[in-house]
Amino acid sequence: MTPETDERFMAVALMLGRRGMGRVWPNPAVGCVIVKDGQIVGRAWTADGGRPHAEALALAQAGDAAHGATVYVTLEPCAHHGKTPPCAHALVKAGVQRVVVAADDPDERVDGRGIAALRDAGVQVDCGVGHKEAARDHAGFLSRITQRRPFVTLKLAGTLDGRIATATGESRWITGPDARRMVHMMRARHDAVMVGAGTVRADNPSLTVRGLGIAHQPVRVVVSRAMKIPATHQLAQTAHATPVWLCHGPDADVAAWAAKGAVSLPCALAANQVDPHAVMTTLAEQGISRVFCEGGGMLAASFLNAGLVDQIVVFSAGAAIGAEGTPMLAAMGIDRLTDAPRFRLESVRPVGNDICHIWTKSRS
Amino acid sequence: MTPETDERFMAVALMLGRRGMGRVWPNPAVGCVIVKDGQIVGRAWTADGGRPHAEALALAQAGDAAHGATVYVTLEPCAHHGKTPPCAHALVKAGVQRVVVAADDPDERVDGRGIAALRDAGVQVDCGVGHKEAARDHAGFLSRITQRRPFVTLKLAGTLDGRIATATGESRWITGPDARRMVHMMRARHDAVMVGAGTVRADNPSLTVRGLGIAHQPVRVVVSRAMKIPATHQLAQTAHATPVWLCHGPDADVAAWAAKGAVSLPCALAANQVDPHAVMTTLAEQGISRVFCEGGGMLAASFLNAGLVDQIVVFSAGAAIGAEGTPMLAAMGIDRLTDAPRFRLESVRPVGNDICHIWTKSRS
Repeated sequence: MTPETDERFMAVALMLGRRGMGRVWPNPAVGCVIVKDGQIVGRAWTADGGRPHAEALALAQAGDAAHGATVYVTLEPCAHHGKTPPCAHALVKAGVQRVVVAADDPDERVDGRGIAALRDAGVQVDCGVGHKEAARDHAGFLSRITQRRPFVTLKLAGTLDGRIATATGESRWITGPDARRMVHMMRARHDAVMVGAGTVRADNPSLTVRGLGIAHQPVRVVVSRAMKIPATHQLAQTAHATPVWLCHGPDADVAAWAAKGAVSLPCALAANQVDPHAVMTTLAEQGISRVFCEGGGMLAASFLNAGLVDQIVVFSAGAAIGAEGTPMLAAMGIDRLTDAPRFRLESVRPVGNDICHIWTKSRS
Repeated sequence: MTPETDERFMAVALMLGRRGMGRVWPNPAVGCVIVKDGQIVGRAWTADGGRPHAEALALAQAGDAAHGATVYVTLEPCAHHGKTPPCAHALVKAGVQRVVVAADDPDERVDGRGIAALRDAGVQVDCGVGHKEAARDHAGFLSRITQRRPFVTLKLAGTLDGRIATATGESRWITGPDARRMVHMMRARHDAVMVGAGTVRADNPSLTVRGLGIAHQPVRVVVSRAMKIPATHQLAQTAHATPVWLCHGPDADVAAWAAKGAVSLPCALAANQVDPHAVMTTLAEQGISRVFCEGGGMLAASFLNAGLVDQIVVFSAGAAIGAEGTPMLAAMGIDRLTDAPRFRLESVRPVGNDICHIWTKSRS
């Protein structure tokens, strides 16, 4: 096959893999396409909850046609006996001729052993096709494995002068319905949605994915040192139906929330607040790889200051509130411009009458 | 000619007309194309300072070829004997067959008389081709004539959280060189650049167009009630070379600035500040039709609150400063979201590593 053909089929595999985003943790969202004589005979993505893996599903779909076929997979096939048999062995057993891999799996149980097992069995393996896209798609999984923390997307939505509410607290609605729908879509593609206590108190949000016909819900994470939030709030009231995790300080009283079904995850403090690094470690240990932080300004500022924000998604509306309005970001203690965290422009586009601009952490 | 042909030639005329933006006040920036047998035989735009008019220049270029030709002009030809002979008469005299006009001229000295004069002389006149673009291009002139105030573009440049400086006042540079170059280009296309006293004190700007090979400079307007700004600032020091106009309160002492060449334009007060409406009336009386307001936050807020901002150009950089930073807009006294001024998205695009989003006043 030509390199162009490889790239085209890998693009399909990547597209399929993305369908699992937010639904497959603690596993990576992998896509797989099996091609025989130029025809796709199997196509799949990691199932909800993380298994079966994409390769197993695609092989099952291909059946005997897998014999002598080429397999496009967005992450190195696993080589370890976990809750599913290793995909590398399944591929060998099916008699595939060639496996094209977009990205290596740094998980210590894989880490090259998947590729080695294939090659040892005489299967041709080519790596790196679609690597850039795969690195982006798997950023959460790779971050959790290599840095022991999830990939964090910070969402900010406000006026063109960076305000999220008026002085009297009015915030509904600054951005329009299209932008708000896109936020729900973004929630759906993350393992967890995270907010601080101030946002729970001010907005009493449900943080669920609504209006898109999507049933699967991200874990809802509340970060609060003291958790002095009445369990009458929506999040507590719905905790039995949709997970609510509390990342709280050691002295917090979470009994009322726990009684409603919320999960207690005690975290260490730093500077008298829940340490953002501790939150990240805790969530990674729970298997979370993609976190969508929806503020408020205090939590956003503390994560930015800690260098834990990988991507910022800003929705800006064509409205002006002025200096008394609530700022998107709380105080960050930045006196020198060189100390301000800098991000690289990823994309910008209109969304209804608002704009959506996405910024990625600059390589430092 | 087909309507498509008409639109195509008018687009050329509009493009030519824009070349005069910022250079032709108090006159409108008109473009003109003369077409004979499908060929352009004359093309011109209003000359610097506002005369000769585009039609006169294009006719001179066309010479005898104007006889029986079609003339595309972005604004109704003038009918009054001013500093130049009326263009409508010149067109008749040249024997043109047809005149296509994009927008009517509401100036009371014209106001349909240009078109009437042409028709009376047997010239075919068609109106409205390219009307939408012409209305945009002539927005400043039309605003000055019909509302007795200039069109105001407010420029805001800051971090993605809407800050223009750190708490210690550091502001150079938040946006990158491409965005700053675009600001210079925008200055060049406006008749005047306007700032408040706070910006003069904080940044000591020169507000000139630099780095683009453009010699023509906009008038530099400082709005300040008391004008308690030492005449050692760059604006004062360069006032003999490039105009500086002071829109100040009745009690201001402008002697030191006037000695340097600055022009005094006393304005009425409102709420103990220079009344933005008075500034607009004053500038319109001086012939200014397009104002580029570069802040600071106090002046921007007062113009927004007064409903005098027609367009907002925002440059957002991929940096975060947090709540101690200087806000783009000062306090506006807005408690209810319904009271926040709203703008319609005009365009958004990347500029280097920043974004430029342009918002236009919503029709109310």
